[in-house]
Amino acid sequence: MADVKSTFLKVYSVLKSELLEDPAFEWTDDSRQWVEQMLDYNVPRGNLSRGLSFMHSFISLKEGKEVTDDEIFLASALGWCIEWLQAFFLVLDDIMDKSHTRRGQPCWFRVPKVGMIAVNDGILLRNHILRVLKKHFRDKPYYVHLLDLFNEVEFQTASGEMIDLITTLEGEKDLSKYSISVYHRIVQYKSAYYSFYLPVACALLMSGENLENHTDVKSILVEMTIYFQVQDDYLDCFGDPQTTGKIGTDIEDFKCSWLLVKALELCNEEQKKVLYENYGKPDPANVTKVKALYKELDLQGVFAEYQRKSYKKLTTSAEAHPSKVVRAVWRSIVGRIHNRQKLENQLRKE
Amino acid sequence: MADVKSTFLKVYSVLKSELLEDPAFEWTDDSRQWVEQMLDYNVPRGNLSRGLSFMHSFISLKEGKEVTDDEIFLASALGWCIEWLQAFFLVLDDIMDKSHTRRGQPCWFRVPKVGMIAVNDGILLRNHILRVLKKHFRDKPYYVHLLDLFNEVEFQTASGEMIDLITTLEGEKDLSKYSISVYHRIVQYKSAYYSFYLPVACALLMSGENLENHTDVKSILVEMTIYFQVQDDYLDCFGDPQTTGKIGTDIEDFKCSWLLVKALELCNEEQKKVLYENYGKPDPANVTKVKALYKELDLQGVFAEYQRKSYKKLTTSAEAHPSKVVRAVWRSIVGRIHNRQKLENQLRKE
Repeated sequence: MADVKSTFLKVYSVLKSELLEDPAFEWTDDSRQWVEQMLDYNVPRGNLSRGLSFMHSFISLKEGKEVTDDEIFLASALGWCIEWLQAFFLVLDDIMDKSHTRRGQPCWFRVPKVGMIAVNDGILLRNHILRVLKKHFRDKPYYVHLLDLFNEVEFQTASGEMIDLITTLEGEKDLSKYSISVYHRIVQYKSAYYSFYLPVACALLMSGENLENHTDVKSILVEMTIYFQVQDDYLDCFGDPQTTGKIGTDIEDFKCSWLLVKALELCNEEQKKVLYENYGKPDPANVTKVKALYKELDLQGVFAEYQRKSYKKLTTSAEAHPSKVVRAVWRSIVGRIHNRQKLENQLRKE
Repeated sequence: MADVKSTFLKVYSVLKSELLEDPAFEWTDDSRQWVEQMLDYNVPRGNLSRGLSFMHSFISLKEGKEVTDDEIFLASALGWCIEWLQAFFLVLDDIMDKSHTRRGQPCWFRVPKVGMIAVNDGILLRNHILRVLKKHFRDKPYYVHLLDLFNEVEFQTASGEMIDLITTLEGEKDLSKYSISVYHRIVQYKSAYYSFYLPVACALLMSGENLENHTDVKSILVEMTIYFQVQDDYLDCFGDPQTTGKIGTDIEDFKCSWLLVKALELCNEEQKKVLYENYGKPDPANVTKVKALYKELDLQGVFAEYQRKSYKKLTTSAEAHPSKVVRAVWRSIVGRIHNRQKLENQLRKE
């Protein structure tokens, strides 16, 4: 496991060097320096969960058969393409959300001299994926399927981002637009396809599988993403910042959070008024009122019940699933959630 | 000719309807309405020169053979992909350049409610190309070559945009960075590939040609683009706004214009000081000083001489070129330039 990660990290430098010598462009010192700095800032500093999840899926599909060094290199390159896609989305999302920090550092567009050049950098990040795929996968029988896959997933993610953006249009904050179906749609399109389906689909393609024989994989991975996202939303409000590593701002940011959607479902008219009056405002007094209402509605209990039921249902589906990768992904999600909770419980006892 | 244009225009509506029903996304009324408005605003309102240039190249390659309705539809779809690419670049460029108007209307990101959502809309425009290609070209033997072509051209254009952006970094306006080689590189990467090479390359692919047998096409099209761009730069300063339809702002905007590069080549130390002190400033007094210097250096004469020589050289190369499309593109560029000049001369006499 640690070995996979260290190999994976080494491949980043190889890909970066190749990109900085790409013969399709006539490089200057200035442009090479710009791209190198931009890549180092935005690509490798995350938790790499998507790239590594792909690596593990790929290895699990080998079912104990020996994986050659060449295969590991190729798999790492593909894993990095997923990380590059993530970097592309984050650089642009931060501009649209007017965010301040990302992964513990200022957002790329907030770095002096960068500003709106970050838009073009986002495009470059997206283009790099195609450059890597062309260089290393052009001769593979699944090359065109990889291109179609990345293209479709990017389209779906941008479409999910669009619903998210137009539902929370500046100056038109309207809670009546939020519902559990909108919530599901945003999570499905904005996160599930690129974060959970893409790594698995890449592993299937690299193992010589036809994605059309695995359409059922998509729906169960969407369910798992929702389960994971609900936990995330819960922790944004009720988690300990020491554990989660961030101070939640979903309420201030007028986010279509699972908690809000549940509150809207469960509240009476008077409580609804509290939500409408206080949700999406930066003042801590407003936030406190929303949190108090969440407690009044026992959303912590509602969450615990949701989690128990979903866990049972998903475990049953996942363990019965014919695809080994699906079982592996489920175990990894459960592991990640379990770790967060263990840490949370420890801190509570301290 | 008029017929090609009217058919072309009809196909836009077909493609739009298909995109708004794309089964890869679960549409809502709001999202469908958003995308439709965004497309109508950004895609079909230009001069369509790239899409139509492709159509004419494609037809000329048929060398008089009958073109079926199906082929015309398919060609129109591909021509629109080039227009979609152009829309994608313009929407994002306008954000980066902080522009105000485009094609006689406010830039998309300046439309109320749009703002930075325009970044995501740009991504959607880019994704639509792949959706159209997949729907209509997936079974063609040249499908993967089309994908590679669009990807490479997009990468080159974004790289060209990068040099342009980092050479004129906010707060680091430095004329010493500008030279004829920087000028050529920006025009080549930022404009030539997507505006002139892409339409021709698409026509070659659709005609069953292998692009590797046509590498020489690229360099002559780059030369033609430079010739065309120099004229554009000249008119930005010396053209009649009544003819060009726009008031040039290259001097105010600190653009790496051909005129500036020539002025830097020809000026003495004292004149250089005038350039350094006045170029890239919004005040009309500064602009007037730069224009006076251009006249002092007889840049009008230098331009006329450049144009005469380049025209002769390019006509010789183009007419001797084995590819019929290259000859057709050259004639169309000459025609466009000739029309601009005729109009210019007429106005001067009035």
